[in-house]
Amino acid sequence: MSNKVGQVIRCKAAVAWEAGKPLVIEEVEVAPPQKNEVRLKILFTSLCHTDVYFWEAKGQTPVFPRIFGHEAGGIVESVGEGVTDLKPGDHVLPVFTGECRECRHCCSEESNMCDLLRINTDRGVMINDGQSRFSINGKPIYHFVGTSTFSEYTVVHVGCVAKINPAAPLDKVCVLSCGISTGLGATLNVAKPKKGQSVAVFGLGAVGLAAVEGARIAGASRIIGVDLNPNRFAEAKKFDCTEFVNPKDYDKPVQQVIADMTDGGVDRSIECTGSIQAMISAFECTHDGWGVAVLVGVPNKDDAFKTHPMNLLNERTLKGTFFGNYKPRTDIPRVVEQYMNKELDLQLEKFITHSLPFSEINKAFDYMLKGDSLRCIIRMED
Amino acid sequence: MSNKVGQVIRCKAAVAWEAGKPLVIEEVEVAPPQKNEVRLKILFTSLCHTDVYFWEAKGQTPVFPRIFGHEAGGIVESVGEGVTDLKPGDHVLPVFTGECRECRHCCSEESNMCDLLRINTDRGVMINDGQSRFSINGKPIYHFVGTSTFSEYTVVHVGCVAKINPAAPLDKVCVLSCGISTGLGATLNVAKPKKGQSVAVFGLGAVGLAAVEGARIAGASRIIGVDLNPNRFAEAKKFDCTEFVNPKDYDKPVQQVIADMTDGGVDRSIECTGSIQAMISAFECTHDGWGVAVLVGVPNKDDAFKTHPMNLLNERTLKGTFFGNYKPRTDIPRVVEQYMNKELDLQLEKFITHSLPFSEINKAFDYMLKGDSLRCIIRMED
Repeated sequence: MSNKVGQVIRCKAAVAWEAGKPLVIEEVEVAPPQKNEVRLKILFTSLCHTDVYFWEAKGQTPVFPRIFGHEAGGIVESVGEGVTDLKPGDHVLPVFTGECRECRHCCSEESNMCDLLRINTDRGVMINDGQSRFSINGKPIYHFVGTSTFSEYTVVHVGCVAKINPAAPLDKVCVLSCGISTGLGATLNVAKPKKGQSVAVFGLGAVGLAAVEGARIAGASRIIGVDLNPNRFAEAKKFDCTEFVNPKDYDKPVQQVIADMTDGGVDRSIECTGSIQAMISAFECTHDGWGVAVLVGVPNKDDAFKTHPMNLLNERTLKGTFFGNYKPRTDIPRVVEQYMNKELDLQLEKFITHSLPFSEINKAFDYMLKGDSLRCIIRMED
Repeated sequence: MSNKVGQVIRCKAAVAWEAGKPLVIEEVEVAPPQKNEVRLKILFTSLCHTDVYFWEAKGQTPVFPRIFGHEAGGIVESVGEGVTDLKPGDHVLPVFTGECRECRHCCSEESNMCDLLRINTDRGVMINDGQSRFSINGKPIYHFVGTSTFSEYTVVHVGCVAKINPAAPLDKVCVLSCGISTGLGATLNVAKPKKGQSVAVFGLGAVGLAAVEGARIAGASRIIGVDLNPNRFAEAKKFDCTEFVNPKDYDKPVQQVIADMTDGGVDRSIECTGSIQAMISAFECTHDGWGVAVLVGVPNKDDAFKTHPMNLLNERTLKGTFFGNYKPRTDIPRVVEQYMNKELDLQLEKFITHSLPFSEINKAFDYMLKGDSLRCIIRMED
């Protein structure tokens, strides 16, 4: 890296000019980091459904032109005023949600929903000055969830940066920035199956498979994968899903199918689709007395979760989670460490089905839209 | 007690001949205990809403003539075949739900919903032979929830009997058979507030006040009592409720009132009314990130719990509990012990507002129907 500290960096970024239209690799200006911000050189980024969802902008507030991307690994290029715990050269994962370490949520052991830096998908600017750090010929290009990693350089709030072991392979651990941690944490931190228990996972995309991976690591005896798309079962088998249920194959509700398979219900279930019907089924398929259902998928605005209260009174638990209950700065470096020293038997490579040079980033969108990929790593330096 | 082992005992019992009609003190025959049963001499019993509810039988399956009563303290008179862990003279609390110690629920640390002896309000007979042990002139008088403590003698399954310290004051600890343990356990075992946290309790009857008592014992900083009946606030103050909210006093939903009072919501809430609207409010008034709501009250058959799933995804937890998650035989003797040695600062006497001789049992119904009493102790030997 040439020394551009305090100066604008000109670099390549994949700009989304309009909803649903292919990204265009453009030369952008990236302003220096301001107070409590850091500028990162991105080495690897991957594509997550959330990028696609806001790029399609069906029903969401459209914020364009915008630089998407929020699963990535990189190196700190320079730091702004007040940043003391990061320095140039540090290896980092930018995260779409933050940890200010001062608010009630950050001070609570139980929450990772930082008041200051909680995900905000509508905001396209930095919170310090309400401006974007990206521009083309002086015209702003908007940020996405504070990360915008589809750019060779990006500016991120220091509270959204996890400093990791520099020996960690960035081309693999970058997927811990979002989806994989979300699913893994939903199982390990929230559902917490005990060794030998049964777990159902609704939705076998990358997040669901990460929940399956968590169940395998926890020593679940049965891992029942539920998906409307039977093509996903082959992939899920590689993650040690032991059984599969396609709700379309049955006349009775899937919660009844699962209860019948498991002598009354699974011990734990994790919902990773965002479908309200799957949420209700995931809850109702748990065993009375001790069943725990964890909701991960993001629902539609007008959805209502609805169940008979006796399902709760019979000692079931219903919880939701955000980013697998991991605090980005405190917990993610630890997960990376546990992955590296095998304390956690986390097989990240199984999630990485594709890899592309930055110039071909639009292909990653095609793979995901076709359902062909779990994670496609985009190599920024190729 | 004269020796009647193996013989029918003739004694007084308060028989409910018809729904909603005053009980009649009759001489009944109580058959000896069969396999896995014990016959108890009841010394003290108290009246709980559940007795009144099934006595009124509005909407429930009417089972008459029946002997109600399920909160009580007594002494083992004789034991049936196979009973090894109880002997005549043991001091006990009969419980409306049981613990067989063999089913999946009993073997699970997390559940107290015994498959064999879980509460069954429709059954009026013993499970061993499908017959009643009570009769008048050979005609059966039905049991209620396996306890029927409005009788000088009763027969109970051994799995529904908690053997307690014989030094415990039966006229006080008898209230731990049902309502008080239900509310106390909902707070201490399920909501588990940390010292200094805020707790809302919906419904300030005996169960709700027991939940309040649990919050006080746990060291809650604020205990917000919610009730539609402002007359209950004076009593609740004695239990260290710190604030009161009557939903009728506000135009906005009570969950919003509580969120406004507490900078975003309470840390824990406990619903003890059975009203579906209160259940939803109790859930939605908890703080995102860490809020836990516990449902205790029994809903109507056709109720639906309904909330926006984002309320869950924002890291709230919704749980239900049954009998405060206490296992009757394993945990209740320990609660009695903790009460006696002051390990638990449980002030049972605050719940006991009235006391009556058995002959005046119908007055206890009047007190409860008028809302005058928390617990009325009925002295069987007076």
